[in-house]
Amino acid sequence: ETTDIIHYTPYNAAMSPKITVELLRQLRQAMRNTKYIAEPIQAYIVPSGDAHQSEYIAPCDCRREFICGFNGSAGTAIVTEKHAAMWTDGRYFLQASQQMDNNWTLMKMGLKETLSQEDWLISVLPENSTVGVDPWIIAADQWKNMSKALASAGHSLVAVQDNLIDAIWMDRPTRPSTQLLTLGLGFTGLTWQDKMTALRSKMAERKISWFVATALDEIAWLFNLRGSDIEYNPVFFAYAIVGMNTIRLFVDIKRLAVPTVREHLQLDTPSKVELSIQTAPYESVFTELQAVCASLGPKEKVWISDKASCALTQVIPKAHRSPIPYTPLCLAKAVKNATEIQGMKMAHIKDAVALCELFAWLEKEIPKGTVTEISAADKAEELRSQQKDFVGLSFPSISSVGPNGAIIHYRPLPETNRTLSLNEIYLLDSGAQYIDGTTDVTRTMHFGSPSAYEKETFTYVLKGHIAVSAAIFPNGTKGHLLDSFARQALWESGLDYLHGTGHGVGCFLNVHEGPCGISYKTFADEPLEAGMIVSDEPGYYEDGLFGIRIENVVLVVPAKPKYNYRNKGSLTFEPLTLVPIQAKMVNTDLLTQKERDWVNEYHRQCRETIGAELERQGRKEAMDWLIRETQPIA
Amino acid sequence: ETTDIIHYTPYNAAMSPKITVELLRQLRQAMRNTKYIAEPIQAYIVPSGDAHQSEYIAPCDCRREFICGFNGSAGTAIVTEKHAAMWTDGRYFLQASQQMDNNWTLMKMGLKETLSQEDWLISVLPENSTVGVDPWIIAADQWKNMSKALASAGHSLVAVQDNLIDAIWMDRPTRPSTQLLTLGLGFTGLTWQDKMTALRSKMAERKISWFVATALDEIAWLFNLRGSDIEYNPVFFAYAIVGMNTIRLFVDIKRLAVPTVREHLQLDTPSKVELSIQTAPYESVFTELQAVCASLGPKEKVWISDKASCALTQVIPKAHRSPIPYTPLCLAKAVKNATEIQGMKMAHIKDAVALCELFAWLEKEIPKGTVTEISAADKAEELRSQQKDFVGLSFPSISSVGPNGAIIHYRPLPETNRTLSLNEIYLLDSGAQYIDGTTDVTRTMHFGSPSAYEKETFTYVLKGHIAVSAAIFPNGTKGHLLDSFARQALWESGLDYLHGTGHGVGCFLNVHEGPCGISYKTFADEPLEAGMIVSDEPGYYEDGLFGIRIENVVLVVPAKPKYNYRNKGSLTFEPLTLVPIQAKMVNTDLLTQKERDWVNEYHRQCRETIGAELERQGRKEAMDWLIRETQPIA
Repeated sequence: ETTDIIHYTPYNAAMSPKITVELLRQLRQAMRNTKYIAEPIQAYIVPSGDAHQSEYIAPCDCRREFICGFNGSAGTAIVTEKHAAMWTDGRYFLQASQQMDNNWTLMKMGLKETLSQEDWLISVLPENSTVGVDPWIIAADQWKNMSKALASAGHSLVAVQDNLIDAIWMDRPTRPSTQLLTLGLGFTGLTWQDKMTALRSKMAERKISWFVATALDEIAWLFNLRGSDIEYNPVFFAYAIVGMNTIRLFVDIKRLAVPTVREHLQLDTPSKVELSIQTAPYESVFTELQAVCASLGPKEKVWISDKASCALTQVIPKAHRSPIPYTPLCLAKAVKNATEIQGMKMAHIKDAVALCELFAWLEKEIPKGTVTEISAADKAEELRSQQKDFVGLSFPSISSVGPNGAIIHYRPLPETNRTLSLNEIYLLDSGAQYIDGTTDVTRTMHFGSPSAYEKETFTYVLKGHIAVSAAIFPNGTKGHLLDSFARQALWESGLDYLHGTGHGVGCFLNVHEGPCGISYKTFADEPLEAGMIVSDEPGYYEDGLFGIRIENVVLVVPAKPKYNYRNKGSLTFEPLTLVPIQAKMVNTDLLTQKERDWVNEYHRQCRETIGAELERQGRKEAMDWLIRETQPIA
Repeated sequence: ETTDIIHYTPYNAAMSPKITVELLRQLRQAMRNTKYIAEPIQAYIVPSGDAHQSEYIAPCDCRREFICGFNGSAGTAIVTEKHAAMWTDGRYFLQASQQMDNNWTLMKMGLKETLSQEDWLISVLPENSTVGVDPWIIAADQWKNMSKALASAGHSLVAVQDNLIDAIWMDRPTRPSTQLLTLGLGFTGLTWQDKMTALRSKMAERKISWFVATALDEIAWLFNLRGSDIEYNPVFFAYAIVGMNTIRLFVDIKRLAVPTVREHLQLDTPSKVELSIQTAPYESVFTELQAVCASLGPKEKVWISDKASCALTQVIPKAHRSPIPYTPLCLAKAVKNATEIQGMKMAHIKDAVALCELFAWLEKEIPKGTVTEISAADKAEELRSQQKDFVGLSFPSISSVGPNGAIIHYRPLPETNRTLSLNEIYLLDSGAQYIDGTTDVTRTMHFGSPSAYEKETFTYVLKGHIAVSAAIFPNGTKGHLLDSFARQALWESGLDYLHGTGHGVGCFLNVHEGPCGISYKTFADEPLEAGMIVSDEPGYYEDGLFGIRIENVVLVVPAKPKYNYRNKGSLTFEPLTLVPIQAKMVNTDLLTQKERDWVNEYHRQCRETIGAELERQGRKEAMDWLIRETQPIA
């Protein structure tokens, strides 16, 4: 799945807009209610995120959707005494206009005539207005920019501690507090104590006294714990504050009553003082961080992500605050250790077994005319769930036929659900969470006879996929420098695709993670290193006709080319995904000999590795399919 | 010439360090002299630039060299009451250590243990110190950063209006005021009045009332004037302030006494009021800008480059200041019109004639053992000077034999001067200014028998050169996205080069210009557009043995591939440089058929276009050489 295409909740085109008259009345009342604010505010900003910069959010955090009805992944609502407006980007113009009633103005981002949130506020607010926002769900830098712009026009931005949406949201779901899963050394390769020691040595190196962890996947990784608070992401709501001799974990205390968790965290019998974890309620992070900051020496520094919430960031006095684009946990988590790599390999083998079985089944069923986008996705999930240590999907499956494949962020819904046939291309972008690893794979297939044009464009995408996968590049190269390799063949024919080429992938963690990626857009990425895992997923989309994407998850490994300039060493990629690429879709005349060799070697590996597992699992039909689909191409 | 390799003055390794005891004594006296400052300052910063962000600077602006002796292109000197330190980067550690006496501490930038200027100042200054700098030669953003850092430690940064180096520099050269050259429509394609109108429509579009031009090449381009105030760059010292009805040109008034200049600028008979130029002395820009700013309406905005001097930038009140990374002149200048393109083509044909003649001559002379790096460069200059409208070189020639070729910023000097032979590779990176255009070309030749390794690496560089030159890419693509194409073949063999791949080239202007380029480092570049002109110059450098670089200047032109995705259109490059690439250096087995076709088609063009001109000029030996060197490769 490309990082550009996030979509939390299926969007039902037939749905009527949410009626918001009463909600807006209540919100405006709250904006004047001294129970929440000392002075009435003239505008209230409702961002779309949670307090942890999460990409996917829990139902209790879908506040923007609650107030305006629009449930796309990106959007900010602002309500003033007289107006209500919602900003979103081109992917969502149609959807937002259908989901919002006419109390709302849709602000189409990216169009020249559309005012920015700041400019719009300045244009509608009375003089000397006060604008409120929940400081927990706005990032510190966004706060700064908004505050500056408003101040320049005589207004002010204030933090409203009680969230005003929560105040009027009667049936708001509670914050999830799912059971915690402890991961042993066999899955993690490092104890949480090892990780803590490594973190502290990074802190010591940079003379940092404290580190505040706010990203949920970083906290899960650090403590070798998983949860299921957010769909698709095996994380749990928590904060952590780490000092050189102190560890504070903020989490719903009820979750710590389980003996396995207590033992895992050594809550009752800590081995060493500096590895003893002090637990505290999730909500107490604010006051505890205040206490930590109150006792800081004059030169002490505190690390916090520059994407962390304004609320937590501003607790740290500016002189002590050291904001960083990527935390040491983010960087350490990205470089997988041998155990994690082994786990990711196992997860990809199981995932490939499920997909081989699926594609063999599809070949048999499609001619009957009974398989739809939804039933195919369900079948894929069913087959994956039969595999060992399956936990759930890693993102909602993109199962799309014909023209639906050209909608990059498509999810099948009853009203759009198309039947798979022998005449249209089928694109399946799907993945799963297993306890040993996370998968994400896209295959594009034709079950009848693809047209020459479909084959031609598929082949350009394949050439791009191979160009990245087979690239050799010096140590220290950033992923964005490889993005153009994926496009070269398409560009030569005047074609392109409008999303990035790859993203970092977590190990039984988020399917999208930083700090590395392969995109023309990401220049803040960190250099690729052996052990990092990213996706390689170029595509081509012909609006109204079809979509093509070929995605493997690949591991960064050392390469050994002929020379070694300045002893820098070289890197390349090793595919973890081992699912055949449909030869029927390839125009082999357009491939170079090197590219043909790559395809044949890839298929040899698929046959060898997945074949062995299919045999072990006794999946004969899938085995026959695999053998046929991995015949060498000429 | 790559943009990474600027080097103003030849560096003489045998030279003894400059004795600076007396100069430092005088400077420290000036730092306490109330003639220059109200209160004594405890440190004085001497940056290396001039007041116009020029890449090459005039002798009168070489203040950092004057005070410390180091004459590399990059470096900042800071003198306190007790210390003197100079910061420079890895290219110059050896040179700086040899040119400076032991009153100076060399601060090696890029090394972990080296303090930044700010941190060093904080570590050596007494409490509550005042640090001075000439606000004309420090950029506004550098001032801001330095000022902030010093303030955080209780010190302050102050602007010292009189330059303290100038105050003690007895034989300081005067600021050059060379004769101005007026360019007619036949060279520029647009009158300065047309350019002014286009500038004003850009200003109107963005609701900008005034524009302050500070870059010398932008001012030269705008007024269709050239000078020779700075070596290699046909520019003249000036500022301009443009309003919707006003044009102010600040330049040494003596230069405007010439009738052709007066007529060109219509100083005596302006056609329209809004196109009447008010001239004023160069130095009066400060007070005139103050006057302009004093009369600004409440919403009026002033455009100024974000790289402009702190002095001029701060004249504009913050509420009215609109700093921009690339001025409208920089952007307009980069896209060459039909006349400029024609001129650039003519200039490159003449330049190729000179080089064909040179290489034919070298083939004859080298076996005699009498040709050196310096004499070869001199011969190249002599042959270029025979061409019509030759003005001078566009940068100091890099003429390098064998191991000298691996020093990327090499310039031949008597002590390093190597003799060209049949055993070593010769790299010549050179270019010229003609009234119709600017050239910049690198050819790497072997006059005997190159080794297999030399041929192999040359061929990888050639593959990279072709990959960029033949690339087809969508309209809107930024040049940095093409950089990896130039490295792909080298990377595959574990090799690389540590400079960017290309830079913008002016038309009878600076050989390096923004806002476009091809580099892994430049992410602030503007998208490539048809009419832009850049260099394509990958290389490979084997320390102690040889250097390889193949450089053409190329024009961005529309491409017509098979498809046209979203009607975006495609671009590619057309080589303007037409000098044969030595086939003897190519291992043709390593080329694809497409690459062989590219070489043969390129050589066909060289033969056709340069052959015709050689014939017209009756240069028989060069013609024979050209015919031989452009035989198709198999």
